[in-house]
Amino acid sequence: MKAEIVSVGTELLLGFLTDTNAPFLADQLAQLGIDNYWIAQIGDNQGRLTDHLRRAWERSDLIIITGGLGPTEDDVTRESISALLGEEMKVIPELETQLREFFGSRRLMMPESNIKQATLIPSAGAIPNPVGTAPGWWVEKDGKRIAAMPGVPREMLRMWEHEVKPRLRALSGDLTIFTRTLKVMGLGESAAEAAIKHLLAGTNPTIATYAKRDGTHIRISAKAEGEAKARALVDELEAKARLALGNTVYGEDEATFQGAIGRLLQARGLSVATIETASGGLLAHALGGVPDSAAAFRGGLVLDNAQLGEGAAPFLQGLDRETLRTHGPNSNEAAITLAQAARATFGAPIGVGICGEAAQQPADERPSGLIYLGLDFEGTVEAHRHVQQATPEQVKERAVMSALSLIWRRLQGET
Amino acid sequence: MKAEIVSVGTELLLGFLTDTNAPFLADQLAQLGIDNYWIAQIGDNQGRLTDHLRRAWERSDLIIITGGLGPTEDDVTRESISALLGEEMKVIPELETQLREFFGSRRLMMPESNIKQATLIPSAGAIPNPVGTAPGWWVEKDGKRIAAMPGVPREMLRMWEHEVKPRLRALSGDLTIFTRTLKVMGLGESAAEAAIKHLLAGTNPTIATYAKRDGTHIRISAKAEGEAKARALVDELEAKARLALGNTVYGEDEATFQGAIGRLLQARGLSVATIETASGGLLAHALGGVPDSAAAFRGGLVLDNAQLGEGAAPFLQGLDRETLRTHGPNSNEAAITLAQAARATFGAPIGVGICGEAAQQPADERPSGLIYLGLDFEGTVEAHRHVQQATPEQVKERAVMSALSLIWRRLQGET
Repeated sequence: MKAEIVSVGTELLLGFLTDTNAPFLADQLAQLGIDNYWIAQIGDNQGRLTDHLRRAWERSDLIIITGGLGPTEDDVTRESISALLGEEMKVIPELETQLREFFGSRRLMMPESNIKQATLIPSAGAIPNPVGTAPGWWVEKDGKRIAAMPGVPREMLRMWEHEVKPRLRALSGDLTIFTRTLKVMGLGESAAEAAIKHLLAGTNPTIATYAKRDGTHIRISAKAEGEAKARALVDELEAKARLALGNTVYGEDEATFQGAIGRLLQARGLSVATIETASGGLLAHALGGVPDSAAAFRGGLVLDNAQLGEGAAPFLQGLDRETLRTHGPNSNEAAITLAQAARATFGAPIGVGICGEAAQQPADERPSGLIYLGLDFEGTVEAHRHVQQATPEQVKERAVMSALSLIWRRLQGET
Repeated sequence: MKAEIVSVGTELLLGFLTDTNAPFLADQLAQLGIDNYWIAQIGDNQGRLTDHLRRAWERSDLIIITGGLGPTEDDVTRESISALLGEEMKVIPELETQLREFFGSRRLMMPESNIKQATLIPSAGAIPNPVGTAPGWWVEKDGKRIAAMPGVPREMLRMWEHEVKPRLRALSGDLTIFTRTLKVMGLGESAAEAAIKHLLAGTNPTIATYAKRDGTHIRISAKAEGEAKARALVDELEAKARLALGNTVYGEDEATFQGAIGRLLQARGLSVATIETASGGLLAHALGGVPDSAAAFRGGLVLDNAQLGEGAAPFLQGLDRETLRTHGPNSNEAAITLAQAARATFGAPIGVGICGEAAQQPADERPSGLIYLGLDFEGTVEAHRHVQQATPEQVKERAVMSALSLIWRRLQGET
């Protein structure tokens, strides 16, 4: 089944909004084993939308539309589908009753323009929308189908999960794509590819590598009749991949790196505390923002470089102020004593310190950062210096990933 | 001038990647006064891309393409443009030299497949790309134009700013759209709209309101011959809007709310310290991540709820442990004493405390959060309780905005 996705809204063409519906739906279609060949963003213009739908209707079996189902004159998705199929929109009494009840239950007057949200054409059925006023349209004609859903992500998401996806699953027969992503740390994309080279040739299941911010992703996909069979194919290839990748795999699918570390820490009864300057709280937020790592996170302190000077942060325990004076706040030595102070102040077995400058004076147009990472792992200390040409946001993000990697490697018994 | 945007890459059709190039370019085109009527994501397939370009070439004066300029067989943008125009790609010696130098300077072997990045067709000129291997193509034929840029956002961005945008600015004559966004806190979208109602009728300049995460945005746009004239029109309407909106305006365009607060704090010689549990470091990162607010940020502490129990965080000064025992860590009282402890521990005139639970047990499908905000502003304390049906991420983000709003209101002399 060939599909395409159409996102409707002039805001998308003006750059006011980023279309997040289309990539979500694209991923979902792939998982259903439905081939998605086109995505387009079209404005609130009936002529252009109808024109686009005409082409889509010719070349695809399924058109997924989001947006343009609102009550105003600008919302032209219903009108465009009607024009495409040459059918007339009529108010459906049952839908009108539901719509008036929706407003009534909220003690609101229904603007009369909303009545178009209670219309259908002969080839369309209404798709219930319990979280908004606009029902979707499910159109079937000449062996082709259109699913039109609201553009508001929350309403679209619910309608997709509860209404559209089940219908498509029934339609696409049992042919399912099942995908699992292994997440790897400490192997770059090309090294990961080399490690699984002997597995790359197959066509079903397939395996591929992607460089991501949280390491290298190894995506394994299989197509089969029914999810169980597809999953079995993935499981089999996954076992081989895990054998080749060893303990560089930290998790799969939705797993986060800090969550994986958190689980390891909890298993060993360990916890982490942090003190950071250059990363401005990003490390604390990374650890504190994920349940598994939050459980092993004793606490984090965010300071400005200036506060590492004379007599500052007097409540900090275990801080070697003499070292700070001698080596300055931007040094490996400072990073180590920050890690030590994190341990002592919060009473944690593992301390991490991040200092330096996320934004150095840019040379030759390119921004750069200088970061010092310190780790005190139950009394064993190490420090690392990273210079990076990148934006301050990237420098901070990489500093956090590097700091987490230090803990991860230590937990795995590497040094 | 009618334009359209084409983003090339099969990852976009599989939902692996969200297309952020297209909305950026859409916004830029709008600012240049160029009408953008279509955006599409097309896979790495020469047939479909050529087909799409053929239609775009018929209906538009300008096609902006990103992606598909890489060295592999999957990269088919050059081939598709060549097919569209019926012209043959040839290796250009000068481009080949540059390409080989790019690899040479990095002490890398150039894979021979990269040679296609040194090709042109008669209607195309190369667009320099100092930050990557692939030059862009600038195509002119029959009064129409194509700009093909790399898909990597960093490379695209540089090429757009330095090469493509200046050419388009020259082309689009002097008709320029100038836009300024005023950012407002403490007025919802409808209240903001009501305040500027008398300004809404005009067609040039125009003014419109948008509800955003960092308050309400008031977007003022004007079209005129030359940026100076367009800017003057915007300035005039902006003055009226500011009069109507009063001190709810915290900044414009790229301004952040925390940055605006930071400047006010610095102007008064004040600074802030924070202690947070439920928001897991997000407040510290918000304040520490923006230069203006970082300068007025004394420090932040991230703790887990468990650490607010008996005898925990012993280094904290000014913490009323008796209150914590009596009222528990999720209470207005806890939020206030956290704010007090932030002041005392970091020696700051203003302290903020955030506690509660970002993720409560979800009732009826909807996740919810319960947040307590405390403010100690030079000894005057206040606390607020917020219950929200939202994801934990949203709950945390809103908690941070609410905490910042408390400081903002106090700085403005409201209570």
